[in-house]
Amino acid sequence: MPANAISPTRAEDYPEWYQQVVRAADLAETSPVRGCMVIKPHGYAIWERMQGILDRMFKDTGHVNAYFPLFIPLSYLEQEAKHVEGFAKECAVVTHHRLELGPDGKLVPTGKLEEPLVVRPTSETIIGAMYAKWIQSWRDLPVLVNQWANVVRWEMRPRVFLRTAEFLWQEGHTAHATREEAEEETRRMLDVYATFAERDLAMPVVRGPKPAAERFPGAVDTLSIEAMMQDGKALQAGTSHFLGQNFARAQNIKYASASGVEEFCWTTSWGVSTRLIGAVIMTHSDDDGLVLPPRIAPHHAVILPISRTDEERVAVLDACRNLEAAVARATYAGEPVRVKTDARDLRGGDKVWQHVKQGVPVRIEIGPRDLAAGAASVTRRDRGPKEREAIPLAELPARLPVILAEIQRGLFDRAAAFREARSVRLGSVAEVTNHFGRDDAGFAWVHVADDPAVAALLDPLKVTVRCSPLEGPDEPRTCIVTGRAVARRSVLARSY
Amino acid sequence: MPANAISPTRAEDYPEWYQQVVRAADLAETSPVRGCMVIKPHGYAIWERMQGILDRMFKDTGHVNAYFPLFIPLSYLEQEAKHVEGFAKECAVVTHHRLELGPDGKLVPTGKLEEPLVVRPTSETIIGAMYAKWIQSWRDLPVLVNQWANVVRWEMRPRVFLRTAEFLWQEGHTAHATREEAEEETRRMLDVYATFAERDLAMPVVRGPKPAAERFPGAVDTLSIEAMMQDGKALQAGTSHFLGQNFARAQNIKYASASGVEEFCWTTSWGVSTRLIGAVIMTHSDDDGLVLPPRIAPHHAVILPISRTDEERVAVLDACRNLEAAVARATYAGEPVRVKTDARDLRGGDKVWQHVKQGVPVRIEIGPRDLAAGAASVTRRDRGPKEREAIPLAELPARLPVILAEIQRGLFDRAAAFREARSVRLGSVAEVTNHFGRDDAGFAWVHVADDPAVAALLDPLKVTVRCSPLEGPDEPRTCIVTGRAVARRSVLARSY
Repeated sequence: MPANAISPTRAEDYPEWYQQVVRAADLAETSPVRGCMVIKPHGYAIWERMQGILDRMFKDTGHVNAYFPLFIPLSYLEQEAKHVEGFAKECAVVTHHRLELGPDGKLVPTGKLEEPLVVRPTSETIIGAMYAKWIQSWRDLPVLVNQWANVVRWEMRPRVFLRTAEFLWQEGHTAHATREEAEEETRRMLDVYATFAERDLAMPVVRGPKPAAERFPGAVDTLSIEAMMQDGKALQAGTSHFLGQNFARAQNIKYASASGVEEFCWTTSWGVSTRLIGAVIMTHSDDDGLVLPPRIAPHHAVILPISRTDEERVAVLDACRNLEAAVARATYAGEPVRVKTDARDLRGGDKVWQHVKQGVPVRIEIGPRDLAAGAASVTRRDRGPKEREAIPLAELPARLPVILAEIQRGLFDRAAAFREARSVRLGSVAEVTNHFGRDDAGFAWVHVADDPAVAALLDPLKVTVRCSPLEGPDEPRTCIVTGRAVARRSVLARSY
Repeated sequence: MPANAISPTRAEDYPEWYQQVVRAADLAETSPVRGCMVIKPHGYAIWERMQGILDRMFKDTGHVNAYFPLFIPLSYLEQEAKHVEGFAKECAVVTHHRLELGPDGKLVPTGKLEEPLVVRPTSETIIGAMYAKWIQSWRDLPVLVNQWANVVRWEMRPRVFLRTAEFLWQEGHTAHATREEAEEETRRMLDVYATFAERDLAMPVVRGPKPAAERFPGAVDTLSIEAMMQDGKALQAGTSHFLGQNFARAQNIKYASASGVEEFCWTTSWGVSTRLIGAVIMTHSDDDGLVLPPRIAPHHAVILPISRTDEERVAVLDACRNLEAAVARATYAGEPVRVKTDARDLRGGDKVWQHVKQGVPVRIEIGPRDLAAGAASVTRRDRGPKEREAIPLAELPARLPVILAEIQRGLFDRAAAFREARSVRLGSVAEVTNHFGRDDAGFAWVHVADDPAVAALLDPLKVTVRCSPLEGPDEPRTCIVTGRAVARRSVLARSY
């Protein structure tokens, strides 16, 4: 048994550790198509858990799902001036709609399209074109639609889950009669993301508006949730955009008000993606591999029969199946406990380490000795692999949900304490420059204005203003760079 | 109130009736991207119901979900000889990965790819390439993976849900150690589709192998389920392919057997798509619009408050909300009854007809008079819009699941009777030629061999052999065209 299941460790080489955790947990791998990943069954099962919870939250806040075309006519991207600058860069472009087999057995693209089509990097323009048709009067508002889809942004430096050419996401697109309603929606969905991140992913986040330079192209305001990874870097885990009337004007999305006046709509968009899987990995995992918060774990617990003789095998397996049935009747977080018995014919140690590396929250081992004592040997993924507890079989169905809740809360508390320990308040340009001399500088809470002079200070340090969180006490002071009055501190960090 | 809500009626113009049903039910519409549809919230909610049920059935038969790249390198399509002929035709081809903004404000594709990428028309080749890496030994088998995804097949004559350039589907891809296991899987998934079609979509199907000319390109055997639409045409509603070792050989998908011998895997693939929504529309809907089988209806029932005065309004709405809560505690088909109160400020008649056209199985109207009688006025979508039944409010939570079950069964029985009435057994070439002189010829059960001479007879009639159903009594006889012995009758029909 290795000292650690993952090599290199986090301390040795964090980026490579990340890749090895993904590989050891069998979550995903690179594909023959440059920059595109294959999400393997275990990785996809985590995404399905995330989807299920988020979809429920979207529906509970009044949204419905729909589906819009994968392709966007080139001219649509040209409509919104900022949007074109931001998104019309690294896109996959479809130029032909037919293939012909040449005499050499090679395929040749033919059937050139009159107007090239862009594979959606995001769908504001195509969805806006439909909204312009659908919305006539104030009675049609608000339009609250979400889409689960794949999108493509050609990436020069792909990294599994974090930055891939194709990724899966959801994009909400809403249209409202008033600025206030649209702003409220933007904030509501940011709060949905923050709740999901903290409650379900056990990942503490700060939330707030991003500086102008970091906004979604075409947005009036971009709000984000930002989490701290274990190397101290920030990861933008979700964004919610107030688009004002920018897209409505560019795309002619209008409504007749109750008094008959024609007005432009106010729109929003918001999204999270498979990047969240990368965020979970880098928030919780350790040098033995993946650690999963129970709420998004495909399985809460695995039961492992241990036996040497055939006779033992029958008795032990029987006890495992009985326990599985009893545990599956218990509930955690409003759903039946997800448990499976792993009776594969594999060396016991290999099997245990597979589940360690895959991040199953609880392992329940049952051997002949346990059976004689009427107990099981329980190991938690949030503790050391050798910290076992003997729990009577009869108590496990009631105990397991309690243990899962402890793990979920414990992971959040650990991540929150980690972030707290790596957060500082800085008060001057010198302090900022000095602090970000180190690699694992974490989050610095600093008074800065939304001004190019601030970016000019931070760019050489490879640091950005992540967002200006609205929570926490207001501390009006002046910008350390420009001297302008600012209402509260922003979070500065290096980032993914 | 019109005589019929949909114009034209089915009898007047079936294809146009279909388009009008889709429009009146607000299911989908064409998009600015040629051949691509927008699936609107009501249409997408039906797809979500279908997905939920099928996904459960796939998992219950041992499958897991994963996700593979949208793009396929051109050279991959060239690997399997038959596959390239069948699929390398009307494909969307990505040739560039960048856009640059010209001085005229127009975007120009740049960054030409060394090898063009094809937007997946189906994923055998890209998934096979991964399986070749993943599968080493018999211990790795079977691989039982499904993918929910969008695919693109450039269509020259698009038709919403039935034939669109982009559509949503699931594609299962499995690899096995033996021919027997793969054939069993092929048959198992056909049976899953047939069960889903008949139990959930209330759509009777015949199931069996298709003639060689109609096989999936590269398959050894293609099994399909075929349903009869109300114009007598067949619609292929799902397919399950036994791929033999064709793709395994082309892509080098090998495993080491228990005795250490290297063998090619046996593979299968199977899929259903958003085309099923079109099938449901054309199986059940009537001249008043969509009719939905309760099991896939986004809402089982809608409660409609009726009032004239403000005072009435309060009392009626209160009763509606109470009923909604009581009904939502009842269960149908293992899930809570899906009910909503529609309290929108719309003219009552308009509102009722909206729900008729959208296919809600049960409408429950409550006005002051009903309230005084302690009852509601219940109308079923499978009966005439004026056939009402007064049901005591206290009884409705128990009665509704019974009514839903009646509707579900009734729709199936009606569709089965319709198919029965439009099915004939024919025994000679002359009978076939004569029978298919009519437009609404339905299904003809005929003894035909799988032979080009049969296609030569049927082609001018625009008729195909849909499949040779394994169910029903064997009636060995000779082919009406070739005189060769055949074991059972095949189904001949015009088709979508």
